Amino acid sequence: MKESYVQEIIDLIRRERREEELLKQLERYHENDIAEALELLTGEERKRLYRILGPERISEIFSYLDDASSYLEEMELANATEIIGNMDSDDAVDVLENMDEEVQKKIVSLLNAESSRDIKLIRSYDEDEIGSKMTTNYIEIKKGLNVKQAMKELISQAEDNDNIYTVYVCNEDGSFYGALDLKDLITAREHADLQALISNAYPFVRDHEKVADCLEKIKGYAEDSIPVLNEKNQILGVITSQDIIEVVDDELGDDYAKLAGLTAEEDLNENLFESMKKRLPWLIVLLALGIGVSSVVGIFEQVVAQIAIIVCFQSLILDMAGNVGTQSLAVTIRVLMDGHLKTSQKLQLVLKEMRVGLCNGLVLGVLSFAFIGIYIWQMKNYDVFFAFTVSLCVGVALMAAMVISSMIGTIVPMFFHRIHIDPAVASGPLITTINDLVAVISYYGLAWGLLIKVLHVV
Amino acid sequence: MKESYVQEIIDLIRRERREEELLKQLERYHENDIAEALELLTGEERKRLYRILGPERISEIFSYLDDASSYLEEMELANATEIIGNMDSDDAVDVLENMDEEVQKKIVSLLNAESSRDIKLIRSYDEDEIGSKMTTNYIEIKKGLNVKQAMKELISQAEDNDNIYTVYVCNEDGSFYGALDLKDLITAREHADLQALISNAYPFVRDHEKVADCLEKIKGYAEDSIPVLNEKNQILGVITSQDIIEVVDDELGDDYAKLAGLTAEEDLNENLFESMKKRLPWLIVLLALGIGVSSVVGIFEQVVAQIAIIVCFQSLILDMAGNVGTQSLAVTIRVLMDGHLKTSQKLQLVLKEMRVGLCNGLVLGVLSFAFIGIYIWQMKNYDVFFAFTVSLCVGVALMAAMVISSMIGTIVPMFFHRIHIDPAVASGPLITTINDLVAVISYYGLAWGLLIKVLHVV
Repeated sequence: MKESYVQEIIDLIRRERREEELLKQLERYHENDIAEALELLTGEERKRLYRILGPERISEIFSYLDDASSYLEEMELANATEIIGNMDSDDAVDVLENMDEEVQKKIVSLLNAESSRDIKLIRSYDEDEIGSKMTTNYIEIKKGLNVKQAMKELISQAEDNDNIYTVYVCNEDGSFYGALDLKDLITAREHADLQALISNAYPFVRDHEKVADCLEKIKGYAEDSIPVLNEKNQILGVITSQDIIEVVDDELGDDYAKLAGLTAEEDLNENLFESMKKRLPWLIVLLALGIGVSSVVGIFEQVVAQIAIIVCFQSLILDMAGNVGTQSLAVTIRVLMDGHLKTSQKLQLVLKEMRVGLCNGLVLGVLSFAFIGIYIWQMKNYDVFFAFTVSLCVGVALMAAMVISSMIGTIVPMFFHRIHIDPAVASGPLITTINDLVAVISYYGLAWGLLIKVLHVV
Repeated sequence: MKESYVQEIIDLIRRERREEELLKQLERYHENDIAEALELLTGEERKRLYRILGPERISEIFSYLDDASSYLEEMELANATEIIGNMDSDDAVDVLENMDEEVQKKIVSLLNAESSRDIKLIRSYDEDEIGSKMTTNYIEIKKGLNVKQAMKELISQAEDNDNIYTVYVCNEDGSFYGALDLKDLITAREHADLQALISNAYPFVRDHEKVADCLEKIKGYAEDSIPVLNEKNQILGVITSQDIIEVVDDELGDDYAKLAGLTAEEDLNENLFESMKKRLPWLIVLLALGIGVSSVVGIFEQVVAQIAIIVCFQSLILDMAGNVGTQSLAVTIRVLMDGHLKTSQKLQLVLKEMRVGLCNGLVLGVLSFAFIGIYIWQMKNYDVFFAFTVSLCVGVALMAAMVISSMIGTIVPMFFHRIHIDPAVASGPLITTINDLVAVISYYGLAWGLLIKVLHVV
């Protein structure tokens, strides 16, 4: 039992000179493994392989590549067109999008009517509409067939369509009637009533629905495929579980990017200008907000001038407030993503976050009071009373900042969610700024009040 | 065409008193919709429904619930056991884990031998091993059957097993031989050679493989299911595409949590102590690192005492360095997740990030120099030369901090990835600390050198 088939495939292609034997041997291997092997072959070897395997198998193999366009560009246009025509329409769209605009147009014009229509349909949707993720590869039968007729129809359509595990049933007028699980069809007795096996309350989505809005619903049904309907209730395509995996994967990347303040996911080969464009807008917003915070710190310039030691702990308090705010933000976004919350549950979450913030703040506040007091007293050679008064300010401000940050980190994403703005994108800078302001004001305010006004230490 | 079936189901249950009619009507609906309806029914209505639908359908419905344990606790132990016994073994494990330890033990002891064995098997794996995610619900036939025999075997096993779309073929000794796509079996002519349709280079995973290590591989094959083998090459279970969706979904939550410095995902109903336990360790680490940074700021106490205005912009520089570092971190983690990089590609990524950091830093540095200069000159009433000298320090330190942060934000996750520590968890605090230190030293160092030593402004 080999742990990897890719090397086996490469060895086989390099060793076996008899073309028929090679074709037969390659039958055994998974298209995904052959696709990986492709990248390790020479251009000459690939050309030979294309000829031996033929356009149908090659199109299956190319569907597994992240980007098949470079291989298609190695071929003559007619061959490339045939391979794209054989692909599932959603895969074909992905490949085309990576190709030169001119070549794209030529290929689309050369495709047969059906492929060309399907590709145009999928490309007509915005990237965030579910229609752009569907495949037009599915089985559709008319209502009113018996078990044997349905099976026959299925087998005849299966030649061109891979997604055969849910059979879609349509009314005479072409509108969606229901769905039939292939398992039920196979295990049905020949004279069973097919009608009774069809689920006519089968889930569906509308072509223009936003991906983000219907993804949770689709996942919930855990079906092999879900039909995509237009307003006339006609089936346009299906979303398969493989499509869902792709969409969820993309979302993962996007969320990562959003949390870090990038407008979209980046990759290794992006050029400098593209990368700057994705990052600079956010950074400029942050710079403007940062200057705002700086001007608030400026109010306390005189306090700092008199007690310079307190500056040392500003970064500590601001960083901790930021960290706590991020934790609350992450928890809140996940809770919001998972489902609809009642107002009472939202309030409950805010209170819970504040309670956690308070308890953690107490622990960290006490730790800071002790360690920072000792540090100022022993290492900076201030007198013990002054040292612990400063560290008291740090500890109390830290605790206050943590409670308030927890609250802000929970309320702000809820607010954005309420007004239908993605909280993962919008919350970050606002939370950081509010938290910085709260932390700065409470820290320097406390230092000014306690050290200068009450204790007159300077 | 209704947009939601849940209300329909509830109305039906409340309206229809004839039990047989209700049973027949509910046949039409998807288990997921009935599961959602359950939550909106009263305890009495649920009890009636359990009796009418019977344990088999109920177990299917319960598989769609996030947490069926509370409903199972409403029932007598014998009924709950029957329902759990009817579930897929991985769903049964999920449900049991949410139940009281005592009840769990009782139910497991009451289960039939097969269910109990499967559940014990799945529970024997660590949560991060792929074996813990598998289901034991699949079709297995012996090698050497003909098309008709295989079909007959399939139909007889389909009664108990839902995942019938890939048929697994075993050798005489029970070891895995290959897989047969149901589509190929259905469309095969009766006297075709079944052997030729079986793929004996079908992908598989080992039961103890780490989920994180094999997930990309499994996703790559885009199959309905992939077998899980032990060291003797026997099939223990399969990973279905629905399992993959669940795993990817869980990963999304975990990554969110990790980026925010939580040790695991939290939810709304968690108690205070649990939440503290997940957050406090990270916060204490950050506090310790923060105190370290503070002591470095302490070195510049005298500079601050002489030119208090420079303190205002410390938060700006530190925040921006942090933001840029986070962006580089996010990009790097995604690139590392997507595949294996050669050393030259890693170097290329570091250089790219530094170049982006430099260019963005130039833009923001110039903006800061201008705006902060004007702010100090006009709003704080310092003389124009002093104002722009301070803002020059801010601009230059900002640019330097951004270049270095980009580098650190790329190198640190690569380092953790290299030594097999999850970069999403470990990188954050180290990057923040290094960036803070670099930013503080370059800013105050520059201010000290330029303002005090060279220009003698104070």
